Amino acid sequence: MKSVKTLWFTGLSGAGKSTLAQATALQLQKSGSACVILDGDQLRQGLCADLGYSAADRHENIRRIAEVAALMNQAGLTVLVAAISPLQTDRAVAHAIIGSAWREIHVATRLQVCEQRDPKGLYRRARSGELADFTGISAPYEIPAQAFLRIDTETLELSLAVQLILAATAAASPLSAAAVPHLS
Amino acid sequence: MKSVKTLWFTGLSGAGKSTLAQATALQLQKSGSACVILDGDQLRQGLCADLGYSAADRHENIRRIAEVAALMNQAGLTVLVAAISPLQTDRAVAHAIIGSAWREIHVATRLQVCEQRDPKGLYRRARSGELADFTGISAPYEIPAQAFLRIDTETLELSLAVQLILAATAAASPLSAAAVPHLS
Repeated sequence: MKSVKTLWFTGLSGAGKSTLAQATALQLQKSGSACVILDGDQLRQGLCADLGYSAADRHENIRRIAEVAALMNQAGLTVLVAAISPLQTDRAVAHAIIGSAWREIHVATRLQVCEQRDPKGLYRRARSGELADFTGISAPYEIPAQAFLRIDTETLELSLAVQLILAATAAASPLSAAAVPHLS
Repeated sequence: MKSVKTLWFTGLSGAGKSTLAQATALQLQKSGSACVILDGDQLRQGLCADLGYSAADRHENIRRIAEVAALMNQAGLTVLVAAISPLQTDRAVAHAIIGSAWREIHVATRLQVCEQRDPKGLYRRARSGELADFTGISAPYEIPAQAFLRIDTETLELSLAVQLILAATAAASPLSAAAVPHLS
């Protein structure tokens, strides 16, 4: 069976994780790869509906997503995870569960840009104190030290970003840092 | 996209759920259907490793399996779930999550037969009081009132059971009770 991967998109709310995952999935499907998107926001309506945003719940959220991704990889699906997954320790657990199929893609759009976009009005609510434990405002985001790839959606056009992701994940080893455009 | 199903095998420990699911999956794969087995015992090592056997934990266990099955159905996979899933209310929740893809298969092997088989020595431990809340001994098993199909592995040979399952799930509507052999 063809080697399948889990592309794990991590980054701030509004960074462009879901958009990148969707656009990448579309290209993978066009090329005949069976793939599936696991979107953190959507999973919180279903599999993870019982979880909140405490550190323990965030950890459990990431653990469950990783377990499902591993099951789907075993079933032959390429998985694209879009989840803030702010903590290095939680991502390390996900990596351990998913194993060698793991590809971490840091969607490295700057906080200021994410906050300007604010597609769901969450930053405004976090700044006003209405939302607690909001990543980037009142909860930490730990930048991946060794991401497989970094994408800044402020400076990199979507279709080019998708090409970069597809090329990188098809490659045997991570692209060099030099291939990362405009990393803030 | 071809309509995909979740075949939900429910029944006592030792009834033959996993064996039936594996044999059915093998035939589905031979016929070119992408499918995956979600085995309750295996999931308790991963996705559901944090859960025990209380009523609340059993409910959460079934809910998570159903959520994952639904995601996999959405991704185009036929899913075969092997899980004791003893309570009607929990199976109703699973049915609601999975929707029209749901096919409930009651593996209706008699308790006495399951206990004689006792492949993991669990009945012995349950009888001695070492294991609490054991389905059929110290916890209830509610027989599905309207299972799509009932299979008694005491009286029906495995390859015939698989044929019956494949025919039934390919059919538009449930087989009549008359097609169920030797239901105890």
